[in-house]
Amino acid sequence: MSDNIHDVIIIGAGISGTSAAKLLHEEGLDVLLLEARDRVGGRTYTARAPSFKYVDLGGSYIGPTQNRILRLAKDLGVDTYRVNVKERTIFQAGGPSTKYVFQGSIPNFYNPFVVMDINNVCKVMDECAAMVPPAAPWDCPKAAEWDKMTVKEWIDKICWTKTAKEWTIILTRLLYAAEPEEISLLYFFWYTQSGKGIMRLASTDNGGQERKFIGGSQTISEKIIERIGKDKIKFNSPVVRVEQNTDDDVIIITTASGEQFKTRHAISAVTPCLLGRMTFDPPLPPKKIQFIQRVPMGSAVKSHLYYKRTFWREKNFNGMAVTGGLVAIALDDTKPDGSCPCIIGLIVGEPARIMTTWTKEERKKRLAEFYAEIFESDEANHPIEYIDNDWLSEEYSGGCYVGVMPPGVLTSFGSVIRTPHGCVHFAGTETATEWAGYMEGAVQSGERAAREIMYAMGKIKESEIWQSEPESLDVPALPFEESLIEKHIPSIPGFLRFLSLSTLIVAGAAILMRNRSIIEQVKNKLTDLF
Amino acid sequence: MSDNIHDVIIIGAGISGTSAAKLLHEEGLDVLLLEARDRVGGRTYTARAPSFKYVDLGGSYIGPTQNRILRLAKDLGVDTYRVNVKERTIFQAGGPSTKYVFQGSIPNFYNPFVVMDINNVCKVMDECAAMVPPAAPWDCPKAAEWDKMTVKEWIDKICWTKTAKEWTIILTRLLYAAEPEEISLLYFFWYTQSGKGIMRLASTDNGGQERKFIGGSQTISEKIIERIGKDKIKFNSPVVRVEQNTDDDVIIITTASGEQFKTRHAISAVTPCLLGRMTFDPPLPPKKIQFIQRVPMGSAVKSHLYYKRTFWREKNFNGMAVTGGLVAIALDDTKPDGSCPCIIGLIVGEPARIMTTWTKEERKKRLAEFYAEIFESDEANHPIEYIDNDWLSEEYSGGCYVGVMPPGVLTSFGSVIRTPHGCVHFAGTETATEWAGYMEGAVQSGERAAREIMYAMGKIKESEIWQSEPESLDVPALPFEESLIEKHIPSIPGFLRFLSLSTLIVAGAAILMRNRSIIEQVKNKLTDLF
Repeated sequence: MSDNIHDVIIIGAGISGTSAAKLLHEEGLDVLLLEARDRVGGRTYTARAPSFKYVDLGGSYIGPTQNRILRLAKDLGVDTYRVNVKERTIFQAGGPSTKYVFQGSIPNFYNPFVVMDINNVCKVMDECAAMVPPAAPWDCPKAAEWDKMTVKEWIDKICWTKTAKEWTIILTRLLYAAEPEEISLLYFFWYTQSGKGIMRLASTDNGGQERKFIGGSQTISEKIIERIGKDKIKFNSPVVRVEQNTDDDVIIITTASGEQFKTRHAISAVTPCLLGRMTFDPPLPPKKIQFIQRVPMGSAVKSHLYYKRTFWREKNFNGMAVTGGLVAIALDDTKPDGSCPCIIGLIVGEPARIMTTWTKEERKKRLAEFYAEIFESDEANHPIEYIDNDWLSEEYSGGCYVGVMPPGVLTSFGSVIRTPHGCVHFAGTETATEWAGYMEGAVQSGERAAREIMYAMGKIKESEIWQSEPESLDVPALPFEESLIEKHIPSIPGFLRFLSLSTLIVAGAAILMRNRSIIEQVKNKLTDLF
Repeated sequence: MSDNIHDVIIIGAGISGTSAAKLLHEEGLDVLLLEARDRVGGRTYTARAPSFKYVDLGGSYIGPTQNRILRLAKDLGVDTYRVNVKERTIFQAGGPSTKYVFQGSIPNFYNPFVVMDINNVCKVMDECAAMVPPAAPWDCPKAAEWDKMTVKEWIDKICWTKTAKEWTIILTRLLYAAEPEEISLLYFFWYTQSGKGIMRLASTDNGGQERKFIGGSQTISEKIIERIGKDKIKFNSPVVRVEQNTDDDVIIITTASGEQFKTRHAISAVTPCLLGRMTFDPPLPPKKIQFIQRVPMGSAVKSHLYYKRTFWREKNFNGMAVTGGLVAIALDDTKPDGSCPCIIGLIVGEPARIMTTWTKEERKKRLAEFYAEIFESDEANHPIEYIDNDWLSEEYSGGCYVGVMPPGVLTSFGSVIRTPHGCVHFAGTETATEWAGYMEGAVQSGERAAREIMYAMGKIKESEIWQSEPESLDVPALPFEESLIEKHIPSIPGFLRFLSLSTLIVAGAAILMRNRSIIEQVKNKLTDLF
């Protein structure tokens, strides 16, 4: 064991760990990053090759209100470019008969019941999200009720039409890489709040998917290491033991190869479930031991098919397709200069769990066939290159994008999420209060944990640990303009109440039951029809 | 590293690991057990002291149909005794006004609606459980539907009366040490099937809680080690790495201290979530990586209050109380000869997560107060000794009693549960098909994994891997006699259909809706009342 006692050791060199390291290094502290893999970046991972230049195999998108990652990127000299959404987008829930082609964020569903219904889902999501305190969702007045429900239960309850139901299921998969029955409703609303509401969270233009980094998102962590020095990181060093001696205030950290490192303070910047790979002495508190068993990672495979030409644009498609099939979302990943024509396909939730058993060749073929059908062109069947990453197989991430919470976790265990364990502090995007699950959340959590240590060292005041971030001047957030019609679209039950029809029905049956039960009947009818 | 290459290394010396070791040792094979703790037994842990002689702080109860553990105990010379249930039992859902005192297995709820309702819950549980294939629950025709639901959703749907709802919630907590919203309905029915139906699973007399081992349940693992030899086990040896070299068929296993052991075959006999503590090379398959993130341990604290006298028996209570309060179940734990008067209290699910933050003194005081109220005696306030075990704090179990499955896990990931990884085989009570979660399941799984290796070695046929067990002659299973009335008690909707009342209502409203919606109304009324 080296006798050198570091000021801070950071476990995990993803965006959270490296942004913590940067801040502490700039404060003049001696930091060391211990990374399990042979690379930085964690869930951001950029492949490079002459044929496609660079491609993000993991986390990739940024957008307005993600001001910390935008500030960090600017500081490091990493530029962004906008994702192509000029042409028409596709939404397809089931087979070809359910295909909608449209311009903008939300499909024109023609059917007024469907429009009302989806509008209502979004409204309720935002209203409920606004009730959840971002740093303490367990304190929400509705916490107990919502944390006992799955998102699937809520969808079955709130949606009147089949299309709205399918749309909301696809949205859930897309946001979490998990199925609606796997997720607590409280967690779902909290996450929506953390992502600044459903429109900001789910939109490409003016939302979380507006931009990408030129050169790839892994560049962020790489440039941080360049800046702080390559001697500040040890690769291939998965941590297996964290021992805190309360007598001399020294933490001894052991890696799988038996190497030991000493430090005064530590930050764990890994996803909760990976904490289970380390033995803590003294052990983690009981609630933390059980918390980290209860935040499984989503299931995502990210795939890229390269083509000779952007054939989809010629058919006035922008390459974006949101579907209930194999690919939850496809997006144009052609470089901003028009080179390397590419369709990204995200396979998430159950389809990812099926795809993980296929060979690369099988994946390529089935994806090409899928695109040929959805973009209505046989050219899709002739990709010139295929590259993907199966995040389920990455044992040092455990999955992607993010640790999700089933019912009961937030209210019974959530409050331990950021509580330091002696001199060990907890970062990682799951511990963020803004844009948790995104690169922005990773930076917020890394810098917050770094400042917890700066506070413990007497360098800053307690009130300075949590800091808000000024808005990026380059990527400002525009308001989402709600048209007068959207604002005043009623929900389906509201609409039925408005129609005198329902009043008549209610009157006719008033002796035997309340209004609600008739509406229940009409609802079942509608779900069957649309 | 020792050059000695073992035939089999077994990770974990609980009942599953030691019963595998016993079988393989008897076959003449050279086995080595690697145990993380300084003791054998895993979730069976017996404390000993002159004052209370011995007490099981973990798994403890056995009963008819658990023929493997009964055979193993007999072989090892460990006797059983019957738990006292002679006097009256207590059921109390909420406050004192909800208290029922009764003789036998199920409270006399007087109110015929409650009797019908609870009877219906049990009937449906058994009917549904019978539909689930024990070795492949994901193949059940209803698998997709049930695995998308929580047990809470099912309870809300099936129960008409508040008392039946509370009874079913308490039953769920008792069986899983978790809350109904945390558990998949498919898993719940599968577990019921694995425990031979609700009556066998939940009963004391003639069920899973009929008996205990004289000397304590840890004796089983201890006697196995005595028999196979103390040189066959290494304590304080948590495994951190399992490396399989496919060229020379040798597995290298590394423990936290850096010690390495070589073997031809290995068995992991730990609970699924603990597999995440080990790095596998080659890594576990993607679905297994995500499966082990999704089987969190239940939350249980087991407490024992010792008294001068069995004061509860004097009031004609047998010491058994099933409640919706602090203690889910209390049981008489006085020794069979009448010495060491004791009440065991199991604190499970949410109450355990609260209790884990209390001091020992606080726990003792609150439990004593609880018993004083429920057994109607101030003597309960004066225990002479207190001992408990907080299983949430045991990092090498992760909780108790068992790894439970939230919605989506069994159907999406369950099929990987027993698939060997190269020459590594998987045991542990969670992988059993009979009495999973119990000592019986531990033995079944340990012996099955041992025979997988014997098959791989060419010592037995493939058809001999899974073996049924002849019934224990000492502890035979009696049928549960259903009285004629019980057999023919209708469910509440059945009862309402029987009454012409409902026919009249239906006729009156037939134009507007179906039968179901009226029954829905009546149901809401009943839930409010009872």
